Amino acid sequence: MSNSSQTQTWSQRFESALHPAIARFNASIGFDIELIEYDLTGSQAHARMLGHQGIIAPEEAEQIVAGLEQIRQEYRAGQFNPGVEAEDVHFAVERRLTELIGDAGKKLHTARSRNDQVGTDTRLYLRNQIDQIRQQLLDFQGALLTLAETYVETPIPGYTHLQRAQPVSLAHHLLAYVEMTARDWERLGEIRRRTNLCPLGSGALAGTTFPIDRHYTAQLLGFDRPYANSLDGVSDRDFAVEFLCAASLIMVHLSRLSEEVILWCSEEFGFVKLGDTCSTGSSIMPQKKNPDVPELVRGKTGRVFGHLQALLVLMKGLPLAYNKDLQEDKEALFDTVKTVQGCLEAMTILFSEGLSFRTARLEAAVSEDFSNATDVADYLAAKGVPFREAYNLVGKVVRTCLEAGKLLKDLTLEEWQALHPAFEADIYGAIAPQQVIAARNSFGGTGFAQVREALAAARDRHQTAIAAQQG
Amino acid sequence: MSNSSQTQTWSQRFESALHPAIARFNASIGFDIELIEYDLTGSQAHARMLGHQGIIAPEEAEQIVAGLEQIRQEYRAGQFNPGVEAEDVHFAVERRLTELIGDAGKKLHTARSRNDQVGTDTRLYLRNQIDQIRQQLLDFQGALLTLAETYVETPIPGYTHLQRAQPVSLAHHLLAYVEMTARDWERLGEIRRRTNLCPLGSGALAGTTFPIDRHYTAQLLGFDRPYANSLDGVSDRDFAVEFLCAASLIMVHLSRLSEEVILWCSEEFGFVKLGDTCSTGSSIMPQKKNPDVPELVRGKTGRVFGHLQALLVLMKGLPLAYNKDLQEDKEALFDTVKTVQGCLEAMTILFSEGLSFRTARLEAAVSEDFSNATDVADYLAAKGVPFREAYNLVGKVVRTCLEAGKLLKDLTLEEWQALHPAFEADIYGAIAPQQVIAARNSFGGTGFAQVREALAAARDRHQTAIAAQQG
Amino acid sequence: MSNSSQTQTWSQRFESALHPAIARFNASIGFDIELIEYDLTGSQAHARMLGHQGIIAPEEAEQIVAGLEQIRQEYRAGQFNPGVEAEDVHFAVERRLTELIGDAGKKLHTARSRNDQVGTDTRLYLRNQIDQIRQQLLDFQGALLTLAETYVETPIPGYTHLQRAQPVSLAHHLLAYVEMTARDWERLGEIRRRTNLCPLGSGALAGTTFPIDRHYTAQLLGFDRPYANSLDGVSDRDFAVEFLCAASLIMVHLSRLSEEVILWCSEEFGFVKLGDTCSTGSSIMPQKKNPDVPELVRGKTGRVFGHLQALLVLMKGLPLAYNKDLQEDKEALFDTVKTVQGCLEAMTILFSEGLSFRTARLEAAVSEDFSNATDVADYLAAKGVPFREAYNLVGKVVRTCLEAGKLLKDLTLEEWQALHPAFEADIYGAIAPQQVIAARNSFGGTGFAQVREALAAARDRHQTAIAAQQG
Amino acid sequence: MSNSSQTQTWSQRFESALHPAIARFNASIGFDIELIEYDLTGSQAHARMLGHQGIIAPEEAEQIVAGLEQIRQEYRAGQFNPGVEAEDVHFAVERRLTELIGDAGKKLHTARSRNDQVGTDTRLYLRNQIDQIRQQLLDFQGALLTLAETYVETPIPGYTHLQRAQPVSLAHHLLAYVEMTARDWERLGEIRRRTNLCPLGSGALAGTTFPIDRHYTAQLLGFDRPYANSLDGVSDRDFAVEFLCAASLIMVHLSRLSEEVILWCSEEFGFVKLGDTCSTGSSIMPQKKNPDVPELVRGKTGRVFGHLQALLVLMKGLPLAYNKDLQEDKEALFDTVKTVQGCLEAMTILFSEGLSFRTARLEAAVSEDFSNATDVADYLAAKGVPFREAYNLVGKVVRTCLEAGKLLKDLTLEEWQALHPAFEADIYGAIAPQQVIAARNSFGGTGFAQVREALAAARDRHQTAIAAQQG
Repeated sequence: MSNSSQTQTWSQRFESALHPAIARFNASIGFDIELIEYDLTGSQAHARMLGHQGIIAPEEAEQIVAGLEQIRQEYRAGQFNPGVEAEDVHFAVERRLTELIGDAGKKLHTARSRNDQVGTDTRLYLRNQIDQIRQQLLDFQGALLTLAETYVETPIPGYTHLQRAQPVSLAHHLLAYVEMTARDWERLGEIRRRTNLCPLGSGALAGTTFPIDRHYTAQLLGFDRPYANSLDGVSDRDFAVEFLCAASLIMVHLSRLSEEVILWCSEEFGFVKLGDTCSTGSSIMPQKKNPDVPELVRGKTGRVFGHLQALLVLMKGLPLAYNKDLQEDKEALFDTVKTVQGCLEAMTILFSEGLSFRTARLEAAVSEDFSNATDVADYLAAKGVPFREAYNLVGKVVRTCLEAGKLLKDLTLEEWQALHPAFEADIYGAIAPQQVIAARNSFGGTGFAQVREALAAARDRHQTAIAAQQG
Repeated sequence: MSNSSQTQTWSQRFESALHPAIARFNASIGFDIELIEYDLTGSQAHARMLGHQGIIAPEEAEQIVAGLEQIRQEYRAGQFNPGVEAEDVHFAVERRLTELIGDAGKKLHTARSRNDQVGTDTRLYLRNQIDQIRQQLLDFQGALLTLAETYVETPIPGYTHLQRAQPVSLAHHLLAYVEMTARDWERLGEIRRRTNLCPLGSGALAGTTFPIDRHYTAQLLGFDRPYANSLDGVSDRDFAVEFLCAASLIMVHLSRLSEEVILWCSEEFGFVKLGDTCSTGSSIMPQKKNPDVPELVRGKTGRVFGHLQALLVLMKGLPLAYNKDLQEDKEALFDTVKTVQGCLEAMTILFSEGLSFRTARLEAAVSEDFSNATDVADYLAAKGVPFREAYNLVGKVVRTCLEAGKLLKDLTLEEWQALHPAFEADIYGAIAPQQVIAARNSFGGTGFAQVREALAAARDRHQTAIAAQQG
Repeated sequence: MSNSSQTQTWSQRFESALHPAIARFNASIGFDIELIEYDLTGSQAHARMLGHQGIIAPEEAEQIVAGLEQIRQEYRAGQFNPGVEAEDVHFAVERRLTELIGDAGKKLHTARSRNDQVGTDTRLYLRNQIDQIRQQLLDFQGALLTLAETYVETPIPGYTHLQRAQPVSLAHHLLAYVEMTARDWERLGEIRRRTNLCPLGSGALAGTTFPIDRHYTAQLLGFDRPYANSLDGVSDRDFAVEFLCAASLIMVHLSRLSEEVILWCSEEFGFVKLGDTCSTGSSIMPQKKNPDVPELVRGKTGRVFGHLQALLVLMKGLPLAYNKDLQEDKEALFDTVKTVQGCLEAMTILFSEGLSFRTARLEAAVSEDFSNATDVADYLAAKGVPFREAYNLVGKVVRTCLEAGKLLKDLTLEEWQALHPAFEADIYGAIAPQQVIAARNSFGGTGFAQVREALAAARDRHQTAIAAQQG
Repeated sequence: MSNSSQTQTWSQRFESALHPAIARFNASIGFDIELIEYDLTGSQAHARMLGHQGIIAPEEAEQIVAGLEQIRQEYRAGQFNPGVEAEDVHFAVERRLTELIGDAGKKLHTARSRNDQVGTDTRLYLRNQIDQIRQQLLDFQGALLTLAETYVETPIPGYTHLQRAQPVSLAHHLLAYVEMTARDWERLGEIRRRTNLCPLGSGALAGTTFPIDRHYTAQLLGFDRPYANSLDGVSDRDFAVEFLCAASLIMVHLSRLSEEVILWCSEEFGFVKLGDTCSTGSSIMPQKKNPDVPELVRGKTGRVFGHLQALLVLMKGLPLAYNKDLQEDKEALFDTVKTVQGCLEAMTILFSEGLSFRTARLEAAVSEDFSNATDVADYLAAKGVPFREAYNLVGKVVRTCLEAGKLLKDLTLEEWQALHPAFEADIYGAIAPQQVIAARNSFGGTGFAQVREALAAARDRHQTAIAAQQG
């Protein structure tokens, strides 16, 4: 392609060319090629606006638009591969354009700067990626909801401090993650709004002397509105930080679920069986079947946190307006997008087809512990014993049982009544695992009736979100 | 106050007391006392609901509410100071309540757990702090707007890469920070909505067997609605992470402005004079007058980033539902609130009364450099010379001037015309600093007319926000 | 104590006093009081040097030293409590000294600055804390070694991917943590050397015009040598960053062990029983016994990572020499010291008296899975079957067993030989858990003989370290 | 190359192949190909040891070594390019080896696991990169020392709080960075020692049943010794964290110097002129000459901090021994190595040939401010006026001068003596900039004589380090 050297780009203020090692060090073309299609689209809108405003001739605008479209085709066909000498994707495109259409190409950069141009590209890119991630969040929720619908009445031990606390409906457990990812979806929607502003026309930092129409360009590119302040327009990266924070929270949620899957498919828990399509073996231990997907997801969490920190550090204390440091925002952003998309895809596959719950183990698990102890205290409290007293009494019972190697269900009615006269025969029903779950039936609780309602509401919201996403 | 030992709190399942060093290690009372008023308010609402639902007797509910109010008075009077033996503020209050009102006190904890209780307290606390920070953001914007109104026509060099780029209106520069903090205000508003959900009634993790009314409690406490899933309710800290991210962005903005103030009041820039009320001296160098406020603000930026990272790390990979790790969310949150509030207060004072712009230096600065070079290129481009050619030509002019020790305004008309025949006498007007600024008059640009419009719009938005905040 | 206002401290270059809110914002006395004893010691050495060099009269030096000693006594007796008006501990001491001894007190600050003074204090503080932490690391290792000595022949499942991989000696497992903390101890020793340099005499940034003897002061304070460059002396915080990194690694190690304890004392694993002195209950669930210590340790990990990040962010891009931002190094440092010391103390107690291993469960665990599968492959490989083939074959056996609900030990010799003619009767011995462990007997492996040697070597190193620490 | 599908690698325990998206998600070949040469070297040593110990036949060992060497040649010739189906570099090599040499290739993996193998590769890689970075640190110091030798007597304003404090020798300023990077060099040397331990032979986690000789392999690969505990051997990443911390400190130092260069080449400071080979222009402003190198270096600082955090987060709370999460250590490590090496190279070029100091501006700068005020206070203190009184008096003088628009040198002797009778005619000499610098002549100070000594000492140390590096 272009073999023009670097110095031809800058003004004749410079006498000598960049040191080759410095040229390599400065070049962003190695990663900002990712932006090329957004750059072409942005430049086409800019050219149209220049023509529309009479800043360049309408036919020049048309030439430019067509030339950029040709570059797009060349790129898609693998024929446009600018090297390090191109410095960045913007110069690479401008040079190729001038090769293709001559002098009109030299007018494309009228009334703009790389600063507002790259800001526009980045926002177009991120807007698109946010839309994809939001769609993936819905896909993942879909997989969870389908599982939840199957497992409303399947019990699973509920934990606090990783100690068995109270049994819950497996659907209830899965719905907790639907809630988390619903917040993720909502949050990304808000961030999309703050991303969808157009810096184009901010120029290098101060606006431009040409009679441009920024609202027109913004509209052509589907932005909600132009930035109101040019200095802010070229130096704002809040949207990227916000996105990285939202991505970090997605990773927090996925890492929590990953940790649980890793536990669940351990020999000790044995709640889940991994399918062969989502697990791997060992190079040396022939019996191994490893939960690589959730482990990798958990491991990638720090990577996204790191990118968030990297961008915050980058922004700290930068004076207005544009500084070259800002070039470093891109790789953090690109890698986060790729990581989050990869993790969501893998987890969706895992929950769609890669694991199965071992319900017999789950049923057994909730029958063999003291996770019904609160229900005994509640039983007494409901009969007027102050809760704190009831609680203390049940603690003593548990200790006695532990020493005797018994469970609560093994106590005779006499034993119960010796402990407190308020106990009656219905205590056995009250502490049966299914009843323990069913009884927690206030709003948001794990009672089966509640869970069914929550599931229906979540499905509704999911459908609405899908519609909104497509609309 | 209470001298009851720790083991009285837990059930009689335990035989021996905590090791004293472990008790100290576990205790959160040293910092969660910050939550006490929110805890009292939350408990009062819980008791009212218990009475309303007939779970406890109405008169018991009244006793509890009154007892908690008395503890509030004792606390405010400095008479309630639980020590480390209290473990946490929640137990401390429950014990004191039982001392005050007897058996009814033991019923307060019916149908709730510390897990949903502390979640409620934290959200009440943060909601309140968010409101204060949003008010402080408006105060700070007020100070910036007042300055901006004074300095619409005052020029200041505009920089990219900390090299003089194009002069701008000082008001335009200040308005960039109004934009940033307006985003901060908006963002915190959204986070407030996700913070303002009520986990109370989630119980330990699974809900409760009592017929509670979670919507009622939520309403009493001013929450928008209860959490829809109890497991999520006790283990969600998204709102805290989001707040720490928003706080980090506030610090990014303040640190950028701080960096600028530090530069501006250096001997070399000399754009700003610090007042004595906002600057400090040296212990050894008698001439020193140091910009401690912006330096400290810049220095505190990392602290907030660190808290954000700490909380993300804490959450990573935690299985559902509550884990003791979550206790560690509080100090990060409290210190961030204190830091951001302190920084906003200090910066507001600094910009209200602590600095003055040295307008003569600013005027001089924009007259002595090549920051009008783009205008020469634009001048030619407006006359039809392709921008890239005009740009190259001007680069050459600048180099010639530099070698001759001249500025652009020093060139004679003959010299201009020798460079390009399109130059006419109006080139001198086009490159005068005031005109250079005035000419960038498209939307969002630094042109004085634009800036006046932007200022009016910002004032409007500010008034609207103030009204919203108070409403 | 002193009620002198702030402006008396700075020179008469200032006309008005600090705004009270700014004074509060700037003041470090709230936390740097932690340094007071180090500050007194440092000032005493400085005064001695001034006298020794004839910069002040010897009797003035004596007066100063005695005055500072009196302040130390007042502080220890709770009688020296400077408030926010003191700005920082250094001014507070200087003022009190002048109150106590008059004009000589005003000479203390000759030939030094707060910049080199606070740097000296911080290094004295950290040197001392490093020594304490290194001692705690040895104490913790002591607890692990004692346990390891008990459990050389106790098996525990060894995991990769949290899937059972190969059984190991419990002592071997515990010794892995001895290795980690031995690196921590070594690393802190190196950091201590880089911490133990004396910035005193660097002045504000450039040294001093007085004929001081920096080697003398350094020697009096036990430093290895003075900093070789004054600008570096006042602005270097590498030692603090290095310490925070070493502290982060300690937390990584403790958090890994904590995670294991949490797993081990879950119902599902059941490998460990927690003692009452190191576990807590629930406010609502009477049966609960929670592993709060390891959970808190795991939770505090992010806090230390956050402090590391905070300090790195603080340092990034600071021009030489001293900047007020550096004041923010202290709280990160102090809180990290406190956190690491607290965690090491709690974990040492936990491993000394707070938990017991359930050896019967451990024995049972290693007998009921396929963690001896590698040994079958090794068996064949040792008989000349290429390892990769042996591995593939054993994979098939495991699958067959799983389908049949059998373990490897359940196969008959005929079945073995049908699989591969190389199998002989000794296969049963080769796959018995104790043999599986014993057979991994190359250096560093889990073979009991190896473990005994490793244990002896670790004890030796531990004794040597204790001697070094005390020496 | 190999078109064998994934399932051929794992044992026949698996029935179906990985989901293709999961295979992509799991694969590390995209980045771990970076390790290939280290992997080949490590495998050759392992094979030699197997042969030496009689675990495989000597001729098999020879075949393997030769086969691996052929793969090395294929790789260097661009003929070995494993795709995503290879999963990772280790499998890719093993498969190719078996293609090349048949059955002997299947024996390579005897007595080792990917876990100890990849740990070995990573340490070999990092050891090599540390050596390169240490060499680059010496190169960079060389550039600084050469400049320092030129500028011993060139003054430059010394700053605290970015306010002019006291003038210093430019050489002294540059030597501060020599000190910092000397610590970096030393620190990396220590980390190299902790990196240079051999995990090979740790097996999957527990060692191996084969009679391997780990000391022999360690020696063949140039390691100091084998890891003493196999569990630790496969799961330790301390060395990587330590390296990332040391890299972060290098970036702290480079970012501080970068910030200074950016300031120095601003119009306002004007202390430095950038050469064309190390600066770039603007796409729109023809006059611009931007300090891209230091800006990018400053911007890349957060990136390295982010990688450090990513790795710490990854390690937090991982149970022993190997977990798939650990695969995520590599990209953070590789990118940090590349970033630090790129920044050191660029900064060395910048300081070798890319900038020049404008000595006339520097001379002028130190003559026009109050940075000699401390010397007046010292002057009085040396005559017996208590320092604090002298300091206060000079503060008043500065204020008077500022109001009168004078500098200290402009005061008449009468004016001096009216201020304090101790002033004599030699005050003028004492406050001349060259004397102000020269007078700070105690160890580590900026006095020219001191600086010359410090420079000589630094050169010596530099030569010694170069010799050590090469030796």
